[in-house]
Amino acid sequence: MKLDEKHFDELENNLNGRPNLAVKPENDLFLRACKKLPVERTPVWIMRQAGRYLPEYRAVREKTDFITMCHTPELASLVTIQPVDIINVDAAIIFSDILVIPEAMGMKFEMLESRGPVFQRPIRNEDDAGTLNEIDPIKDLKFVLDAVSLTKKALNGRVPLIGFSGSPWTLLTYMVEGKGSKNFSHIKRLIYNNPSLAHKVLDKLAKAVADYLSAKIEAGVDAVQIFDTWGGILTQNDFEEFSLYYISKVISQIKRKTEPVIVFSKGVHYKLDRLANTGADVIGLDWTMELGEVKKNIGNKVALQGNLDPTMLYAGKEKIREEVKRILSSFGEGSGHIFNLGHGILPDVDPENAKAMVQFVKEESKIFHCKDVNAQNL
Amino acid sequence: MKLDEKHFDELENNLNGRPNLAVKPENDLFLRACKKLPVERTPVWIMRQAGRYLPEYRAVREKTDFITMCHTPELASLVTIQPVDIINVDAAIIFSDILVIPEAMGMKFEMLESRGPVFQRPIRNEDDAGTLNEIDPIKDLKFVLDAVSLTKKALNGRVPLIGFSGSPWTLLTYMVEGKGSKNFSHIKRLIYNNPSLAHKVLDKLAKAVADYLSAKIEAGVDAVQIFDTWGGILTQNDFEEFSLYYISKVISQIKRKTEPVIVFSKGVHYKLDRLANTGADVIGLDWTMELGEVKKNIGNKVALQGNLDPTMLYAGKEKIREEVKRILSSFGEGSGHIFNLGHGILPDVDPENAKAMVQFVKEESKIFHCKDVNAQNL
Repeated sequence: MKLDEKHFDELENNLNGRPNLAVKPENDLFLRACKKLPVERTPVWIMRQAGRYLPEYRAVREKTDFITMCHTPELASLVTIQPVDIINVDAAIIFSDILVIPEAMGMKFEMLESRGPVFQRPIRNEDDAGTLNEIDPIKDLKFVLDAVSLTKKALNGRVPLIGFSGSPWTLLTYMVEGKGSKNFSHIKRLIYNNPSLAHKVLDKLAKAVADYLSAKIEAGVDAVQIFDTWGGILTQNDFEEFSLYYISKVISQIKRKTEPVIVFSKGVHYKLDRLANTGADVIGLDWTMELGEVKKNIGNKVALQGNLDPTMLYAGKEKIREEVKRILSSFGEGSGHIFNLGHGILPDVDPENAKAMVQFVKEESKIFHCKDVNAQNL
Repeated sequence: MKLDEKHFDELENNLNGRPNLAVKPENDLFLRACKKLPVERTPVWIMRQAGRYLPEYRAVREKTDFITMCHTPELASLVTIQPVDIINVDAAIIFSDILVIPEAMGMKFEMLESRGPVFQRPIRNEDDAGTLNEIDPIKDLKFVLDAVSLTKKALNGRVPLIGFSGSPWTLLTYMVEGKGSKNFSHIKRLIYNNPSLAHKVLDKLAKAVADYLSAKIEAGVDAVQIFDTWGGILTQNDFEEFSLYYISKVISQIKRKTEPVIVFSKGVHYKLDRLANTGADVIGLDWTMELGEVKKNIGNKVALQGNLDPTMLYAGKEKIREEVKRILSSFGEGSGHIFNLGHGILPDVDPENAKAMVQFVKEESKIFHCKDVNAQNL
């Protein structure tokens, strides 16, 4: 689907004429919280905040398809900035898809509205794996890097910009299953019956992910998040062997200065101490975890991100405020908490509720940072 | 679909002529382990062991439909006994479906091969909930109780028979969602926006579940399991309020003598101490948990059941044996462990692998019970 020229002109107008002056974002609460530095209030952003729940996103999406949006820097940039303007979050996250890496390796996929991504030829054996190309993100994923540059320019230092990737394990799971799965039969067959092939591809993916995130940082993102969406389907030993090991490898190979790394392993309620030792600055938690308990265990090593139940945004505003307060007080006093949902925002959520949640975090979190503010004023 | 008469004659021949002499099963390892009494080896059974992975089950299923199987005591009994004969498990579990309770309350459902159960009219508001009947299991679920009596007779005391129910929360989730769900939007909307309606229906369900399990015990089952399949989709507070509270209520109201109660809350990695205080004798664990760690925390109060990854049965036999050994040694010495999968067996598993797993548990678990045996010989 082609976009009309007028639309592109609007985009250009939108993106040009804003010089990229600020090196340090005006609002750097998110970055300070990642490093557990004093903040005046808890920063907040929303996983999948550039998404279908926003009418403004759907208006762009109506004129094109999902994959074209990912491939077109102007469009990716446009929808990346929407939630900063509309929902007032403290960080932007570049609009993209975790499957751009397998795609760049040569795996074509379709995005079906009802079923999610479907690969034409999933990886099931050595022959399939042999077709995967090594990638050079600067060449093969230039469209993402261009989107980063454009977005940095358009953001003009208002808030930090986050880049992201799937974890090697999560990418492998998609590549092997080929589509959404309930029981993960194919990937489990692979790791139980041919673990060496799994490790071979994971190794290749770890390099690709590290290179990709390094290139994003080079292009201007201020932080990166690794989505380990399928870490939680594994036994504890298998998580260590097939997911955690490669997350550590990626983190150790990312070229970065002070840019924080966030790891979100959904459903991984165990081995949090091991996750905290991967070199990550922040650990993301789903809504089944208690922030206060996790803080006790690993809060001395890392900051924590999360963890409102995404379906809580179906509730009335007072209930949302109450739950925001509960989560803030579960974490308690001090820096090192980035408020977020415990998983991506759902497409049928009322944007007003997302906006209210952000506002509640801003209002209700100040009292937990009185000491931080005093520390800054010293 | 009607079954031919010859088939029913075969069933009758199969079930008759075996007097129900034994009060205590010949093989009572399972019951002893539930009570943490000494055993010579670890007992083993498999969740959903009477199921599609068995060609013998499929042969019965081909002649009728799933709901008719549940409603026909002779058929339910026939497939209940199959895994005892074929897989050599240490306990039978009566073939049925957790949705017989909502069905008896007046909610019609279809079982679609591809999508699972689909209710014609899910519960979304007071009016829908108003249509739910109070049930008398002895009248309304007589077919299950008849299946229990028939099966006890046919088992002839070889192994104990387990009865089961969904937890009130899990039943409510199915009744409100109406079909399989990814995000559980409807049930979450209900508990966040109209918690009093949720509690009203949960109360009704708790009574129905307690009456139903009491009737099953009266009909002859030796133990009962409560499946809290959807406990793990909740935040910790909501789990306490909407699931755990009603599980405790059910357990306190079940009429039983020594029959143990097993609770399996899938995905509930938190509040295990609270689960252990519900009055349950056994807590079932999914494959993301470490038996040894859980034993340290609640092993003084309850026995533990689980927790091989169901997809491990896709592996080769040596890998299965290795993993069986790992789980047995994670629990370690002494009674109080019932081996099982961490969730139901998958339909495309090779029955030979299920059989091998059971055999491996029998062979490899003896060394963990030397002291038990000595205790018995004293």
